[in-house]
Amino acid sequence: MVPRLYVPSLDPLGRNFSLPEDEAGHLRRVLRVKSGANVRVFDGLGREFEARVTAVDRAGIVVELGEPVVSAPEWSVRVTLAQAVLKGDKIDDVIRDAVMMGVACVQPMLTARTDVPEAAFLRGRRVERWQRIAVSSAKQCGRAVVPPVLPPCPLAACLGAGRVGHTLILVEPAAAPRGKLSWPPADAPEAATLLVGPEGGWTEEEVAASIEAGCLPVSLGPRTLRADAAAIVALSVLQYLWR
Amino acid sequence: MVPRLYVPSLDPLGRNFSLPEDEAGHLRRVLRVKSGANVRVFDGLGREFEARVTAVDRAGIVVELGEPVVSAPEWSVRVTLAQAVLKGDKIDDVIRDAVMMGVACVQPMLTARTDVPEAAFLRGRRVERWQRIAVSSAKQCGRAVVPPVLPPCPLAACLGAGRVGHTLILVEPAAAPRGKLSWPPADAPEAATLLVGPEGGWTEEEVAASIEAGCLPVSLGPRTLRADAAAIVALSVLQYLWR
Repeated sequence: MVPRLYVPSLDPLGRNFSLPEDEAGHLRRVLRVKSGANVRVFDGLGREFEARVTAVDRAGIVVELGEPVVSAPEWSVRVTLAQAVLKGDKIDDVIRDAVMMGVACVQPMLTARTDVPEAAFLRGRRVERWQRIAVSSAKQCGRAVVPPVLPPCPLAACLGAGRVGHTLILVEPAAAPRGKLSWPPADAPEAATLLVGPEGGWTEEEVAASIEAGCLPVSLGPRTLRADAAAIVALSVLQYLWR
Repeated sequence: MVPRLYVPSLDPLGRNFSLPEDEAGHLRRVLRVKSGANVRVFDGLGREFEARVTAVDRAGIVVELGEPVVSAPEWSVRVTLAQAVLKGDKIDDVIRDAVMMGVACVQPMLTARTDVPEAAFLRGRRVERWQRIAVSSAKQCGRAVVPPVLPPCPLAACLGAGRVGHTLILVEPAAAPRGKLSWPPADAPEAATLLVGPEGGWTEEEVAASIEAGCLPVSLGPRTLRADAAAIVALSVLQYLWR
């Protein structure tokens, strides 16, 4: 496997450039890369190139840009995952999985039953860490696009996203007993937002407001899914439907 | 949430009985349950009952059986997940997820590129641990059935399972480039086996032998999925198709 390096400052017209410090450090210390090694560089916006290491020293690593590369194709539907923040670090794996499943954006959400104090986001530099998780998942899954992970916002802000050509889907475990086990039609929309709740689920008011805003409530089946598994299960179905 | 207890020796005609030691210990030490508390007991084969704690002492916990309970319904298709053993403990989460997704059986597999020495299974009592993971996942997701987790077997043994009414599906990342991005038809079979490979994928010989044995190769999309995520993604699609 050729290492894939994230270089957000990549200038496709440039020829030689120094790698960002974190990537250079990883290449030198962990992968022990030497001059002449082949790597790939991508800019997180969809461009990826072959490259060759031309200098390795304490000051950094210089690479020479080569031919463009075809990365893993992006999903034709711009899907945003709006995921309620979960207890502990559980949203980390959800972000990693969502990037691997091809989402265009991750929007962490604060809901009525979100059990995490808002101060925790400021203290822990969570959003930065989430963005690093997105970078690392993009490297692993072959995407040259790194989806943005936005700062947490309230559910209401996500519902406002509804507009023409934009499908809103609410994962609602109770949807099946109410006879609403429907999925969106197979004609892919331009864009979609998938809303997934916290451990304690949505309140009745949240479900009502979401449906009022145009959300299609979907059930993921009769078993109780772990809160951190709901997103990957729903994204798998959407990827199948809108492939 | 009423605690759900796994009592494989459950006699539905009995009235009062002592809980197994591990369940009694957990109830007493972790949940600090007292006499009079309501619990549920299930036998792992699909039967579940309300029950009430009638005695708590050092000798154990006695419960009195109540009315039968309707558990989370079982999938109408008997799906076996045949998952190649993964590095480290990564198959643990796959087993947990597969039980939550409703499989009837988990068959760990040894394949050409399985990177785990067979001795590791004997040393670590892995199969017992896997079975405990299945119990714990069944408790969490609401199933009264605990799917068996079998001792590892070679790929060839799983292919032999093919027979009338039994669909064999091979998760093969390379299936899409070869133009085989097909999923089984929505008419649910009686039974199916889903085969998922190890980190290094299948060898060409394994793919050929599987197709020869009647496997339908399916791709999970253009991005590289983590080896421990492939099963839940494929099971999500199958659950949607055969709901």
